[in-house]
Amino acid sequence: MAREETTDFMAMKGAGYYSKATIGAKHVMDNATQMVIDAVDRMDPSKRSGVFRATDMGAADGGTSLDMWRRVLANVRERAPERPIEMIYTDLPRNDFSQVFQIVHGLTGEATYLNEVSGIHAMASATSFHEAILPSDTLDLGFSATASHYITAVPCNIENHVHMVGATGKTRQAYEDKGAADWDNMLAKRGAEMKRGARLCLFNFGIDSEGQYLGNTGGVNMFDTFALHWRSLVDDGLITEEEFVNTNFPQVYRTQDQFIAPLNDKNSAAYASGLRLEHVEARVVRCPFEQQYSEAGEDPKEFASDYIPTLRSWSEPTFANGLSRERSPVDRAGIIDTFYQRYEAMVANCPEGHAMDYVHIYLVCMKQ
Amino acid sequence: MAREETTDFMAMKGAGYYSKATIGAKHVMDNATQMVIDAVDRMDPSKRSGVFRATDMGAADGGTSLDMWRRVLANVRERAPERPIEMIYTDLPRNDFSQVFQIVHGLTGEATYLNEVSGIHAMASATSFHEAILPSDTLDLGFSATASHYITAVPCNIENHVHMVGATGKTRQAYEDKGAADWDNMLAKRGAEMKRGARLCLFNFGIDSEGQYLGNTGGVNMFDTFALHWRSLVDDGLITEEEFVNTNFPQVYRTQDQFIAPLNDKNSAAYASGLRLEHVEARVVRCPFEQQYSEAGEDPKEFASDYIPTLRSWSEPTFANGLSRERSPVDRAGIIDTFYQRYEAMVANCPEGHAMDYVHIYLVCMKQ
Repeated sequence: MAREETTDFMAMKGAGYYSKATIGAKHVMDNATQMVIDAVDRMDPSKRSGVFRATDMGAADGGTSLDMWRRVLANVRERAPERPIEMIYTDLPRNDFSQVFQIVHGLTGEATYLNEVSGIHAMASATSFHEAILPSDTLDLGFSATASHYITAVPCNIENHVHMVGATGKTRQAYEDKGAADWDNMLAKRGAEMKRGARLCLFNFGIDSEGQYLGNTGGVNMFDTFALHWRSLVDDGLITEEEFVNTNFPQVYRTQDQFIAPLNDKNSAAYASGLRLEHVEARVVRCPFEQQYSEAGEDPKEFASDYIPTLRSWSEPTFANGLSRERSPVDRAGIIDTFYQRYEAMVANCPEGHAMDYVHIYLVCMKQ
Repeated sequence: MAREETTDFMAMKGAGYYSKATIGAKHVMDNATQMVIDAVDRMDPSKRSGVFRATDMGAADGGTSLDMWRRVLANVRERAPERPIEMIYTDLPRNDFSQVFQIVHGLTGEATYLNEVSGIHAMASATSFHEAILPSDTLDLGFSATASHYITAVPCNIENHVHMVGATGKTRQAYEDKGAADWDNMLAKRGAEMKRGARLCLFNFGIDSEGQYLGNTGGVNMFDTFALHWRSLVDDGLITEEEFVNTNFPQVYRTQDQFIAPLNDKNSAAYASGLRLEHVEARVVRCPFEQQYSEAGEDPKEFASDYIPTLRSWSEPTFANGLSRERSPVDRAGIIDTFYQRYEAMVANCPEGHAMDYVHIYLVCMKQ
């Protein structure tokens, strides 16, 4: 989960932690690489000259997408042997950009396209994808995976839950409205950046036609479990009701219809920017930790201790930010540890049904 | 001193250390900002359309050049209100690029052009300036300060000194030859990147017509003092003769004639790339620490303890790298501390003549 707000935590946990905890996010990209290659094929980079510019938006440390880009950029190079390639990694300013460059330049030992494909100029930008990252008409291939569920700000608190998937009524509507506005704006910003004929590939967390979403694919609902344990801290007097209410993921999970709405709405900013839908589909990618537990007959305790970090890697900042500013850092850290220990104990005691399966809506757009 | 090899050390010392220890490097840029603005004026960005692209090569954390870019980019914006600006910071992959983006995006509290000048897209690259950082014909304004004295590799050990300024005979020649080859290549790589009419402003450590160079402007010679104390560690059995010999700054200080040679040599790669000299001059910028000591009547001990970090900030990696790989980290750190303590004690005992005055050769080139 390339994610906007988790980078302080990531920096704290140190290099490599992010990629290890999010191996599932890598599977999502590896499995869908052909979708990006097909988009490149339809665009046919040989039809143009000059720089071929690609972005990886919300790329975090760049590790999860590295193998995907090795394949995609090799394909671009094959189709357009003479065109220089600019590969631009973007995330928010607090992201670990030092790690991005060390990974991409091969200093961490991972295989990188910089040693395999000629004429690539790797760069980075710390401009949010809610803004114009690049000058107009300069982008050939935009890409973002598992990032655009982050909204610019939460519209309101969620009373009895921590995520909009557990919200109802006006609260749910407020999140959906905010998600729609940010999504249309994010698309329109891309449409402006893209050259005519350019492609945009977006693999986003979403809600599929069966109502499934991340960590909610038939077993124990992950977000309900977050809310359950966070509530138990209120019940035990460890956190206040106010802190519970102030804890809200700044995220919106959108349905497939919500994702494609601005691409079909002639009055939307996205449509006005020239963006048109080429392809959309939903997929579920199995939780690698649950899979290992089920198939390798792992010990439940071991499963639980492997599994919780993949949840914690992206969710911790939201819970930490919900706590009162008046608490000491030690106090806050203790509460957060207790919270995840309770979740881990629950999984270790009864692992069945726990799985952070990934549910993504995959979109490919072109600019007319 | 934006510097290629010091970034691990910098990262270790933490954010902000670099900028504080190199306030003199900031003075060099602040004092010469008009030279860059004049180059922009001659180029006249209004004569072209499309992206105006600038690079700051060997930028380290971007802090020392921030005020210069505020003025230069405001000038570009005034002359070409409609052109998008891409501002690209470059250094080696181990540089603290996270700090670059936090400074440029205003997260450290320093005034940044991103809040003042519209239409700027800040980016970074970790490609060495000895390589092609950008695709051909895409650069409008190249800039680098206090960085190109770093060579790609030392040609040989220096027997009785630690820096080529103290070398003689064949050793001196080997360094000068390596410096000439790297310089011609560095210029040619820029010439290829630049558009026709683009400008390149380079403020580099050099040797002026009076034989002055960094830390050697009439008082105590800084590099001789480095060699003296490093030698004293051999004499006292703290390091071996082999370690002394293996300690060599991977740097070449060039004379003004050496700097301009490839720009006037029709057989050089730089000349073939279209680069032509527009302006050259030498300047001395006074050591801010010595100045404060002299003018504010600072205590010698205080001066010494302020002064040594500005030397240590860029020289430590060279001394640390000279030590045997078989020494433990603790052993190495102890030796390095002893070394700088001896230098500091010498300055505290007899401060007169100690000054790291900056001696730069300033060049402005254009691409035909």
